Amino acid sequence: MKALLLSLCLLPMVLLAQKEDSAFIRKIASEILKNGTAYNNLRHLTKNIGGRLAGSPQMTKAENWGADAMRTAGADNVIMQACMVPHWVRGGTDKASVVTINSKKTNRPLDVLALGNTVGTGSKGVTTQVLAISSFEELEKRKDEVKGKIIFYNAAFNPTNINPSTSYGEMGVYRTRGASRAAKYGAVGTIVRSMTEGENNHPHTGSQTYNDSFPKIPALAVGLRDADYLWKICRENQNVQLTINTYGSFLPDTLGHNVIGELKGAGPEVKYITVGGHLDSWDVNEGAHDDGTGVVQTIEVLRALKAVGYQPKHTLRFVLFANEENGLRGGNKYAEEAKVKNENHVFALETDGGGFTPRGFGFTIDAAKLQSIQPWVQLLKPYGVYQLASGGGGADIGPLNKGLGTALAGLQPDPQRYFDLHHARNDVFEQVNKRELLLGAVNMAALIYLVDKYGL
Amino acid sequence: MKALLLSLCLLPMVLLAQKEDSAFIRKIASEILKNGTAYNNLRHLTKNIGGRLAGSPQMTKAENWGADAMRTAGADNVIMQACMVPHWVRGGTDKASVVTINSKKTNRPLDVLALGNTVGTGSKGVTTQVLAISSFEELEKRKDEVKGKIIFYNAAFNPTNINPSTSYGEMGVYRTRGASRAAKYGAVGTIVRSMTEGENNHPHTGSQTYNDSFPKIPALAVGLRDADYLWKICRENQNVQLTINTYGSFLPDTLGHNVIGELKGAGPEVKYITVGGHLDSWDVNEGAHDDGTGVVQTIEVLRALKAVGYQPKHTLRFVLFANEENGLRGGNKYAEEAKVKNENHVFALETDGGGFTPRGFGFTIDAAKLQSIQPWVQLLKPYGVYQLASGGGGADIGPLNKGLGTALAGLQPDPQRYFDLHHARNDVFEQVNKRELLLGAVNMAALIYLVDKYGL
Repeated sequence: MKALLLSLCLLPMVLLAQKEDSAFIRKIASEILKNGTAYNNLRHLTKNIGGRLAGSPQMTKAENWGADAMRTAGADNVIMQACMVPHWVRGGTDKASVVTINSKKTNRPLDVLALGNTVGTGSKGVTTQVLAISSFEELEKRKDEVKGKIIFYNAAFNPTNINPSTSYGEMGVYRTRGASRAAKYGAVGTIVRSMTEGENNHPHTGSQTYNDSFPKIPALAVGLRDADYLWKICRENQNVQLTINTYGSFLPDTLGHNVIGELKGAGPEVKYITVGGHLDSWDVNEGAHDDGTGVVQTIEVLRALKAVGYQPKHTLRFVLFANEENGLRGGNKYAEEAKVKNENHVFALETDGGGFTPRGFGFTIDAAKLQSIQPWVQLLKPYGVYQLASGGGGADIGPLNKGLGTALAGLQPDPQRYFDLHHARNDVFEQVNKRELLLGAVNMAALIYLVDKYGL
Repeated sequence: MKALLLSLCLLPMVLLAQKEDSAFIRKIASEILKNGTAYNNLRHLTKNIGGRLAGSPQMTKAENWGADAMRTAGADNVIMQACMVPHWVRGGTDKASVVTINSKKTNRPLDVLALGNTVGTGSKGVTTQVLAISSFEELEKRKDEVKGKIIFYNAAFNPTNINPSTSYGEMGVYRTRGASRAAKYGAVGTIVRSMTEGENNHPHTGSQTYNDSFPKIPALAVGLRDADYLWKICRENQNVQLTINTYGSFLPDTLGHNVIGELKGAGPEVKYITVGGHLDSWDVNEGAHDDGTGVVQTIEVLRALKAVGYQPKHTLRFVLFANEENGLRGGNKYAEEAKVKNENHVFALETDGGGFTPRGFGFTIDAAKLQSIQPWVQLLKPYGVYQLASGGGGADIGPLNKGLGTALAGLQPDPQRYFDLHHARNDVFEQVNKRELLLGAVNMAALIYLVDKYGL
């Protein structure tokens, strides 16, 4: 009874706070939708700088631009946090073609891209028979047939998965681990069906990791229409021969940076909240949705909070992480330094699912905490976020959770279009809608405000 | 207490029913996501038929295609419901250019499109001074300056509206009524800022309606970049002269059809549920999102229910309505015949907001009924629909509600991208994502199943 009375007494205060929060979030939203610079920032990052793989000249250009953009947005100070990054280069134009079908000459090119971190074929290329399989299970069954061949993994996304990320989770391993799995049995190259269910023929690159116990062999991704063609001719004919040409190699590690903008907290004790995306992208596109949008949304949250005169309790760190795509050195460095300096990181939010219309946030926190923040849904719903779900974060902030136990969240934009362009040539500025981009930033800013005010 | 016991007894039945419903909806979803023909149907409708304004040869082609598609999808029978439709033709290429600024010759073209249902300028065009205003309020204040001029309505969407449909609701009247409002004071033509906040310069057409009390004058829409330019030069200069050339006219009304596919109900009493979109589109694009996607989703719902062997209680009517864009004759005819034949129409669902990722349904039913169906949200949420809101339906099914009191709903896809292409040249097939399109159909089929099973 006492508890009930107490909560009845508190009710007007709760309602007042909710009204205040609602008004503040509306203010933030109007600021972003009216004066947001994220779209123009993205235009610059994608069109004037472009693809910015770790170690490339564009990486350095992007870092300098990022620092300037943070200052323009109103950061109290900007830190360039140094870290060594891998420097993989594609080295040339990846090519593949079907050269013979049952010894009959043909010359059918396939649209391919080398996977990140792969070795090349040498200038003469590799010409040999292809073995088309649909799973690792089939690889194991047919391991005696593998030697000297190129293995073609034709593992398709399951279209009945409602969230295509589920399909990516299921099939990604053919890209990341397929080369060494095949090299174990003597394969001399691999081609993987691209990680997409898009309707065009663009190949989708992405990183892969060799198992050092086996020879390192070239690994390519092929576009879906060509994958379907290759699958068909391999199933219909005894002997299909391919030539592949690819030139990947590693140069020595080089100096990269996490670009960090800060808004200093007013609290007596310094506690940190991190908001971020990754500044690097693949080399074959403009890195618009992956993760240019996360980068400019991060800067937009800083700009908008500053523009409306918000004084945070926590020190807010806006971080453009280095080298998410093929090494994660930026994310690891950020967590290492936090640990070394004994910093108190209470929360980190990452956006790396594309700049599509927002639907929710996914959290890595304990269940009771997640339950306790459910009332926030009512504050975010007018702006598109209707769920605060369990599970989520981001690759770059993962090490903070691992090393320091920091609570994590990731923005969940609508996932349907992401794998149409993820790591492919068509991940360009024109694919981004200004309003969707800005609404993502609105919800991110609102969440940061709520966590800053109420803790987590 | 009795009520409580009763509801406790009923609980297992309710849970069982929910499990059944959930399984059935999953079955429908898998059928659509795996075997859906909506995307290929849309490709045909947009690429092989294209823009299909009422009265055009493409209208007839689209009707015949629609009837065939309904049969292929498994309709028990297909009805071609005749109705006379208006036959407005654009008549030529709409043009506008700035010819003098303060008597100094220039020749700056503006990207324009005549609004639907407008008269032309005659072959010589109209050359006169332009008066730029931002609202009807300003028009009234400056009515003495209007005579002999072209009125340029520069009424921009408010970017802080979270749903751009709100902006369309606020500003649409400048397109639909602006010509006659200006003609009242002697204007000889109007140009309206396009109903969009997109980043390109495409003009957006759409219907307008003359007030017969005033002279009919030509009315154009202008792209946003050119609107900004025109606004600037008009504010900075005393006298800006424009030439406009446009050729719209009405031919005699002609015969069109609502294309109706039926799945016969098993109930002893014939009750109808209608699902539809509109088959006509503007002439300047492919009518992809408006409303090709609604058309192919409607056919997809029919196909999927048939494919999984569903036997409805109600007779389900899948309707491709004629002439939504510039007359609504199809929607009116459908309701009129229903009334004449004393048909019992319990529910109608329309999709005319684009084939974007689904978020909800909006209902025109009484509040208590809407409350009672809220548990359905849990069944739809896995597929993207998280709200069953008050308010909604569609232009074509509106007359059913008005005339027969039929309960209505409209699919609410994500609204952020719609006005980037609505009534503009870029409303083409390439703007449609296959998965978003199919998920719309999944939710529509699920809702139809629930209404068919439980009533409304």
